[in-house]
Parts: sequence; structure tokens; C-alpha cells
Amino acid sequence: MKVELLSVTPDAEKLIETAARTAYRSFAKQKIGTEKKIIRLVISKGHYSVLEHAYATFKISGVSRAFTHQLVRHRLCSFTQQSQRYVNESKFSYIEPSSIKTNPNTHTMFTKFMKESKKVYLELQRSGIKNEDARFVLPNAVESQIVVTANIREWRHIIKLRGNPDAQWEIRNAAIQILKIFKIKMPTIFEDFDIDDKKKVIRNKG
Amino acid sequence: MKVELLSVTPDAEKLIETAARTAYRSFAKQKIGTEKKIIRLVISKGHYSVLEHAYATFKISGVSRAFTHQLVRHRLCSFTQQSQRYVNESKFSYIEPSSIKTNPNTHTMFTKFMKESKKVYLELQRSGIKNEDARFVLPNAVESQIVVTANIREWRHIIKLRGNPDAQWEIRNAAIQILKIFKIKMPTIFEDFDIDDKKKVIRNKG
Amino acid sequence: MKVELLSVTPDAEKLIETAARTAYRSFAKQKIGTEKKIIRLVISKGHYSVLEHAYATFKISGVSRAFTHQLVRHRLCSFTQQSQRYVNESKFSYIEPSSIKTNPNTHTMFTKFMKESKKVYLELQRSGIKNEDARFVLPNAVESQIVVTANIREWRHIIKLRGNPDAQWEIRNAAIQILKIFKIKMPTIFEDFDIDDKKKVIRNKG
Amino acid sequence: MKVELLSVTPDAEKLIETAARTAYRSFAKQKIGTEKKIIRLVISKGHYSVLEHAYATFKISGVSRAFTHQLVRHRLCSFTQQSQRYVNESKFSYIEPSSIKTNPNTHTMFTKFMKESKKVYLELQRSGIKNEDARFVLPNAVESQIVVTANIREWRHIIKLRGNPDAQWEIRNAAIQILKIFKIKMPTIFEDFDIDDKKKVIRNKG
Repeated sequence: MKVELLSVTPDAEKLIETAARTAYRSFAKQKIGTEKKIIRLVISKGHYSVLEHAYATFKISGVSRAFTHQLVRHRLCSFTQQSQRYVNESKFSYIEPSSIKTNPNTHTMFTKFMKESKKVYLELQRSGIKNEDARFVLPNAVESQIVVTANIREWRHIIKLRGNPDAQWEIRNAAIQILKIFKIKMPTIFEDFDIDDKKKVIRNKG
Repeated sequence: MKVELLSVTPDAEKLIETAARTAYRSFAKQKIGTEKKIIRLVISKGHYSVLEHAYATFKISGVSRAFTHQLVRHRLCSFTQQSQRYVNESKFSYIEPSSIKTNPNTHTMFTKFMKESKKVYLELQRSGIKNEDARFVLPNAVESQIVVTANIREWRHIIKLRGNPDAQWEIRNAAIQILKIFKIKMPTIFEDFDIDDKKKVIRNKG
Repeated sequence: MKVELLSVTPDAEKLIETAARTAYRSFAKQKIGTEKKIIRLVISKGHYSVLEHAYATFKISGVSRAFTHQLVRHRLCSFTQQSQRYVNESKFSYIEPSSIKTNPNTHTMFTKFMKESKKVYLELQRSGIKNEDARFVLPNAVESQIVVTANIREWRHIIKLRGNPDAQWEIRNAAIQILKIFKIKMPTIFEDFDIDDKKKVIRNKG
Repeated sequence: MKVELLSVTPDAEKLIETAARTAYRSFAKQKIGTEKKIIRLVISKGHYSVLEHAYATFKISGVSRAFTHQLVRHRLCSFTQQSQRYVNESKFSYIEPSSIKTNPNTHTMFTKFMKESKKVYLELQRSGIKNEDARFVLPNAVESQIVVTANIREWRHIIKLRGNPDAQWEIRNAAIQILKIFKIKMPTIFEDFDIDDKKKVIRNKG
């Protein structure tokens, strides 16, 4: 899996401070560093709406269709995903879960099946079947890539939900990588989240 | 594919009339049949927001995961879908595109591959792999079921977009079946849509 | 203030049960009363998305424009509001806060000002000013009416937020009246909310 | 009215090109200037979803509450507005429609009424009435300020709808000023919109 930050609101924490001050007409006190205090206040009070003024766009590649099917359920995000209807998938890569990979027996079974799947897809194409129908034989493991944009309130929600121990491993990994980027770009807004790199989970101190 | 209407706003067209009259405080003229005139006015002027007060819920079953992956991209709907993470899919049914089915050659190839896929899924389970990882071998053809709720403005949008000749055949069929139900339940709101049963497409006269 | 239920999903709790069972393909156990158990499970686990399949529409009248300006900030609702741009407001009614009404001094001041405001609005109209510009003199107190539709997940959110002691009194009253209706129509879904009729606040036991 | 651009996605048109190319896995052809061709294709085909990856935030001040009540109806935007519940409005400024201002008769009437309104508000405050109740006498003309963020697909929708001759003059002016900024920042995405500065309307050539 590869998570790339394609775009992020410049000076996001300052922008959020400016927006927050509009509600109270209190611009006099806006100085270097004053955004920290306001952001902590906003988050502790649960006044998250002001976080919606900042945005981030990620490109996530090397992920399964099982992953993207979950991700696109977040309805407050904007998505552009590689289309299996139009793209020729005859040379697809795939994602192998580590539970399968670490057992030589299941690994062989899985690898063989992926080859078989590619072969059948190709034969269907050769028989004149269009990509949009040939893809019915493609397994969930087939690699996809997706561009996703969301505001920071929604990213906090996704990170909290998908960084949880109950979440599926692939989406949990994505949440962790995304959080690492946010901890650099917007340290105050994400300071209440901790990453446990051993157990690969996220904890929210709030 | 099976499309069942699970729930629909009772007297939807009358409710929409009542809402529309609120904007203008003109309740005096509300009588039997007067909703038709108001609804035609609203639709011809593009004032669709009033259509959001009525809702319909469908259960769609006997559809592929390729279909559901498309459907869940409609972010103004509410979805509950059969989970491949928790449900045991060892006895899955599957959807076969007619382009594949009508050619004995590709049909044999496809059928054999579905059997193979079921076998590998089962063997992974027996080797102790959890459903959430075993599903990586499940093909897009695997049958799913989904419950979807949307307001009538959104249903009109979905029907227009997905009933189009360019749309994928499975989602186009769903759009046609849904429209047939709406033409009975809310005849005025959907009177500007026509179904071409031969070509299996929807036309909007608006 | 008058809160009328215009429409509600029939058998809402049963519909939600049906949707929830789709996720797990467990329809065998669906009997009379089994919806209660499922709904309690869903709410205790925070799996609120399944509550989105049921809806309710209210007409709220006898409320100020200060109230509606707050209400329309809920972006997951659908609204139709009486328009001040088109409706002739020369005979407007108005809402008087009880803090003003209970003091004879402020009450007189307020009443006189409302009369003055109506007079100026009328004179502007007579001078040929259109309603959409004459309304610039209309005070926040001017009575409005609004039709609002939302799904049950969103109604729970609104009731929790707006029934809080910190919420403004007018929207708090609306939340209480709406909750009373839900406690009759969907008793299980709203059983974790209590109304304190003396203090006019809502408490959530969850 | 003052419209300030607080934040905008850097290199927005390039970002949109990158997202669009993800759908088709065609990155090879991405060069300087190639975003223009892709954006024109996307807009001509109505594939607007890819425009959702770019954002802009404006601060709009010197506007009436009549204006903000309309603006906040756009549910795909994020808003932070000056609160009349908490802010002391005893020194409020106000917006006077030009239809009233240009007639000495109505102008005098209006100005006098604004003074009266301010006086009553102040007297209510002095009698111990809280801001949240005293504001019931504040007229629609009272000046407000609002910060609004939306993605570019939504901004195109707002500009089209609110730049129309039928739209109210205040929101039409805002649409024109916003469009002027976009024509500098994202010239290709907004090239199908024209401003008629005399008639103060926007025309869409699409």
C-alpha cells in the first residue's frame, strides 16, 4: 500500500482559527501560535464544524477492491477510482493478506488461483467479451488505486473509526499512514490521536 | 435480480404538495388531485428540493459485487449491504453476464472458474483463514444483496443517470425495475420518464 | 409553536430490523417483537447507519426566523420554508421571548416596536418597494413556518444536540415536542432519551 | 459587500487532472498545459465529480442576514457565521437595498427605523435581557459576516444558480465577485461562465 498526500490546505490551522474567530468577531488577538489554543478549545467542546474549512487529498494505491469497497462507503468524501469497466486488467497486480502469505500452503493455493483468474480474464477478452463483463471473474484481491478528498472533520472521523482494533487490517493500515502525515501537517488538530506501531492501531485520548 | 419495495412514503404526492404550499402559504386551494398541477410546476421549473420530503427503500438481491460497488457511490443514499467480512460465503451464488452465458465456450470457462473459486475459498477457510481474508479470492460475480433508501429527488437522479444507454447493464436493469414501481406509486412525479423495454433503456422527456 | 407530524415511515422499527438482518443474512429469526433486540444492539454498538432507512417529516409553525436560521444549518435535513421574498408579510405575526414578555416594561417596548416594524414594512410596500427588499426591516421575531424531513439517525442527533441545556429555548422546545412524537411512533429507538418537563431539557442515557 | 478569498487548493487544475487520470491509469501524457484538455472534456461530458477534489474558502462580510439565511441553505458547503446569540449587536451596521436608498422618502424611513431598532435592542439589554433574546428585534438588514468553504463542483452550481437574473440582488452580487476570483485562480474550469457587468448577471455558455 502506498499513501501519497496530493494536496492539503496551506496553513490549515491558521485558516481554522480565522474561521473560528468570525463566529465571535474577535480578530484582535490573532497572533503567531494563537491557533493552537483555539483549536484545542474547539475540539474539547466538540465544535467540529470549523474543522471543515480545511481539506486534504490522498492517492492510495496498491490496495485491494475489498478495501476500496469499504472506503467509498464514507459519503462525505470525494472519490476518483480506477475503473474496472474501462481499464484493461489483463496484467493486474493483487494484494495478498499476510495471514495467507505466511502459510506456505495457503500462499501456494492463493498464488495459483490468481494466475488462473488472470488466465480466464484473458481468455474471455480473446473470446470477444468486453472488459466490463470479463471483470466478473476478477477477485477482490485485484489491486486498485483511488484518489480521496475529505475535510479535516471527516478525516478525524475516518481515522478514529478505521484505526480501531476492530477495523479490517488494510483500512487500518491506511488510517495509520494518513494520520502520520496529518501529525506533520496539522500537529495540533491531530495531537489527541496516538499510533501504536506494534499493534497497528490508533488510540484517541479525547 | 430481484427488486422489492420495502417502504415508501404514504401519499407521497400529497405530502409534496403540502410542503410546496408552505413556501407560498397557499393552503386554500389544496383539494383532491391538486397535487398533480403543483408537482408538474415544480419539476418543469427545476425546483426539485421539495421532492426530498418523500422516500423509498428497496431491497435489491441477486446482484453482483460489481453492481453494488457502483451503487454505493451514490452518496445521498443510505445503504445496508451483506458483509463479506462476516458472512460465510462458502455456498455463494453468482451472476453471469449474458454476453458470457450465450456463448457455450465462455459459459463453460466461467462456470468452471466459479467452481474453482468456491473450492479455493473453502480450502482457505479449512486452513484457518478468516472469512475477511478468504474473501480476497471471491470474484466480482459473487451475489450480494443490498437495502437502499433515498429521497425521490435522488431516485429521479439515479434513474436518469443509470437508465442511460451508456450505463452498465446490471445497474440499468435495476433502474428500470425501480422506475416501474415508482410509475405505480408516484405516477405524476415519474411521468416524464419512459421505459424502452426492447432496448432496455430509460428516456427522460424533460 | 406548533409541531405537526406530516409523515413517518410506516412500521419503522420493523423496516430497520429487515435492513439490519440483510447485513448478516439472518432472516430466520425475524418475528413479532424481535426488532426491539436488534435495535438495542445497533444503538449500543453505535451502528447508527441502519437507522437511516426510516424517516419523519414535521411541519413547524409559530416560530421565529431566529429559530429557522438555526434549524436550516442541519445539512442532512430537507427543508421547505415560507419565503419572505415572495410572501406578503404585511400582516405578520411574531414570537416574543418569555424573558421579554414577563417584564411589563420590556413587553411594552417590544410590542410597540413590532407595530412600528409592520408600519414601516407597509409604507415601503406602498412606496413601490418589492417584498424582497421591504423585508429588510422585518425583525428576527417575525413568525415563519417550515417543513423539515430527516432520517431517524439525524433526528436522534438533532434531539441530542438541541435538547441540551445550552441550546436556545425555541429550538429546545421544538426538540422536546419532536421527541414526544417519536416516543409514541418509535418507542424502542428513542427509549434512551428522557424529557425533563420542568427544566425543559432532554437527557440521553446512552 | 466584501468577498475575500481566504484559501484555495494550490494548483487546483493540475490536481484535478491527476485525479482524472487515476480513473483511466493514463499518467504518461501528463505535461505542462495538459490539464486544460482534460478539464474541458470532463465538463463537456458532465463528469463533474472530479472537480470535487479542489476547494475554496471565502469570507463574505458586509451582507444582510437575509443574504446569509439564503446562503446557508446550500447543504454541501461548510459555514462559520457570526453568532447573534453571543455577539453584542448594540453597534450593528446594516445593509440598505438600493431600491430603498435611491428614493429619499424610503431612505429616510429606513434610516430612522434602523436607529429605532438599535435603540430598542440597547434598552432590552439594559433591562437585563440576554443577547439571544434581545436579537428578536434585530431586522434582516443587520450586517453579518460568514466564512464559507465548498468544493469547485459546488461553487460552479452556486454560481450558476445565484448568478441567474431571477436570483436576489445581494446573493447575485456575491456570485459575481466569487466568479471573478475563480476566473483568475482556475481559468479553465470557469471559462464557460460570462459576467454581464451592466446587468449584473452571470451567463453559462455550457
